[in-house]
Amino acid sequence: MKYLEHTVDAKVRFSEVDSLRVVWHGNYLKYFEDGREAFGLHYGMSYLELHAHGVVQPLVKMDMDFKSVVRYGDLISITTRLIYTKAAKVIFEYEVFNKTTGLVGAVGQSIQVFVDENMELQLFAPPVYDEWKKNLPWKEK
Amino acid sequence: MKYLEHTVDAKVRFSEVDSLRVVWHGNYLKYFEDGREAFGLHYGMSYLELHAHGVVQPLVKMDMDFKSVVRYGDLISITTRLIYTKAAKVIFEYEVFNKTTGLVGAVGQSIQVFVDENMELQLFAPPVYDEWKKNLPWKEK
Amino acid sequence: MKYLEHTVDAKVRFSEVDSLRVVWHGNYLKYFEDGREAFGLHYGMSYLELHAHGVVQPLVKMDMDFKSVVRYGDLISITTRLIYTKAAKVIFEYEVFNKTTGLVGAVGQSIQVFVDENMELQLFAPPVYDEWKKNLPWKEK
Amino acid sequence: MKYLEHTVDAKVRFSEVDSLRVVWHGNYLKYFEDGREAFGLHYGMSYLELHAHGVVQPLVKMDMDFKSVVRYGDLISITTRLIYTKAAKVIFEYEVFNKTTGLVGAVGQSIQVFVDENMELQLFAPPVYDEWKKNLPWKEK
Repeated sequence: MKYLEHTVDAKVRFSEVDSLRVVWHGNYLKYFEDGREAFGLHYGMSYLELHAHGVVQPLVKMDMDFKSVVRYGDLISITTRLIYTKAAKVIFEYEVFNKTTGLVGAVGQSIQVFVDENMELQLFAPPVYDEWKKNLPWKEK
Repeated sequence: MKYLEHTVDAKVRFSEVDSLRVVWHGNYLKYFEDGREAFGLHYGMSYLELHAHGVVQPLVKMDMDFKSVVRYGDLISITTRLIYTKAAKVIFEYEVFNKTTGLVGAVGQSIQVFVDENMELQLFAPPVYDEWKKNLPWKEK
Repeated sequence: MKYLEHTVDAKVRFSEVDSLRVVWHGNYLKYFEDGREAFGLHYGMSYLELHAHGVVQPLVKMDMDFKSVVRYGDLISITTRLIYTKAAKVIFEYEVFNKTTGLVGAVGQSIQVFVDENMELQLFAPPVYDEWKKNLPWKEK
Repeated sequence: MKYLEHTVDAKVRFSEVDSLRVVWHGNYLKYFEDGREAFGLHYGMSYLELHAHGVVQPLVKMDMDFKSVVRYGDLISITTRLIYTKAAKVIFEYEVFNKTTGLVGAVGQSIQVFVDENMELQLFAPPVYDEWKKNLPWKEK
């Protein structure tokens, strides 16, 4: 498996915690999105750059596993891993690690596809994306 | 003062409550927006209809007073009151009433202006809006 | 497979739509939660009742498939289906149906477990839950 | 007027932008809260420390003025200013500055009071808060 990953630190907002005083599960999707964005900025392919090329990558699948609670005040890191694929899709894995407790908070996996501006599914990734992908410093596992 | 009002019932979502087990203050803006939308649908001028006429009404001011707590499970009603004005702006007042406790939860007031699609401020309300306003069953207070 | 389901109508909030003018994917988790809550109220086992018995049911898994876009102004219905299981867990399936387009917007599945107030995993469902489960009008498929 | 201020940088999340591609107004309250939290951490009085002393400071008033749009990708800074008062309340002013456009995005002011754990209003600030306030490096304007 070829992959590439990036980690970014983050903090839990007061407004992200529910009445059980733990992060409300839906807010992990914001952490995953923060991770995906940080990944894109780090490796030179941001949402806005893609959008400027008329490329949109809607999510078609998102799986989440909640492992341990994250509380307000906890420091977290978000690791985002792009999984290499030849298919016209984008596969990311995520891990939210709770640095305060030393435990994994949640993991996830998402699949995105390529659509044009009329939301029509594209069978091939756009050239700008393939070009970018080719030049990445992939790791092997 | 000429005004027109509309009331809609609503429920507090689990995800809207914070770790003190009361509605997080920012979520009142969602209730105000729900009220504004219900008002528009009731009186025949929705966001989407305005948008179809190229009219956008961004908020320029929002004031909120928090009076008593609202908890998960509480039933609320949202009263939205359009205040008549000759100026090229839209003034709404809001009241979130907690039907479970019999107390006012929060009140607010917002001011919106008219901009065109380039976000340029308009000194006059668009004809479609003035026409609509003229035919409303205004009340006097 | 034994199951039980409940459907509730809902509306898309302006604040739930992203810059592509479609529901931001994380907001489907609010629809799923709305569905779960409506299910509980309909069949007589709400979050607050469980909480009063010291029972908390944290999510451990959530899978989502996004099928077609849902836009601001679209009317949706949320169907929530409890899947019968002998295990000490709670399995729900969800479908967000877009009544405006006639297409399924998203489906999902969640797994919850039982913990006590110290967040310790319980190997058996609490008596109040088993009693409730026994008396439900399960359907067969 | 005696005051004390602190500035923190922030980024606009994709999920914070609405279908007009500008920050949804309610999300400024998250930026204000981020600012308030950064202020507290910087000057040694966090929400969690206050909470540990049984002190809760609910918002009773929040005013917001929206000056110019903030878009996804814009870099912002949040300046939070504590205004000195002898009264048993906490007054903050906020400014969200858009570093990308060089324009102020929004300003706001909030008032918080002190309540005990039964949500009863306190006529005097708690000793831990007064002690902290006395030792701050107030500026004069």
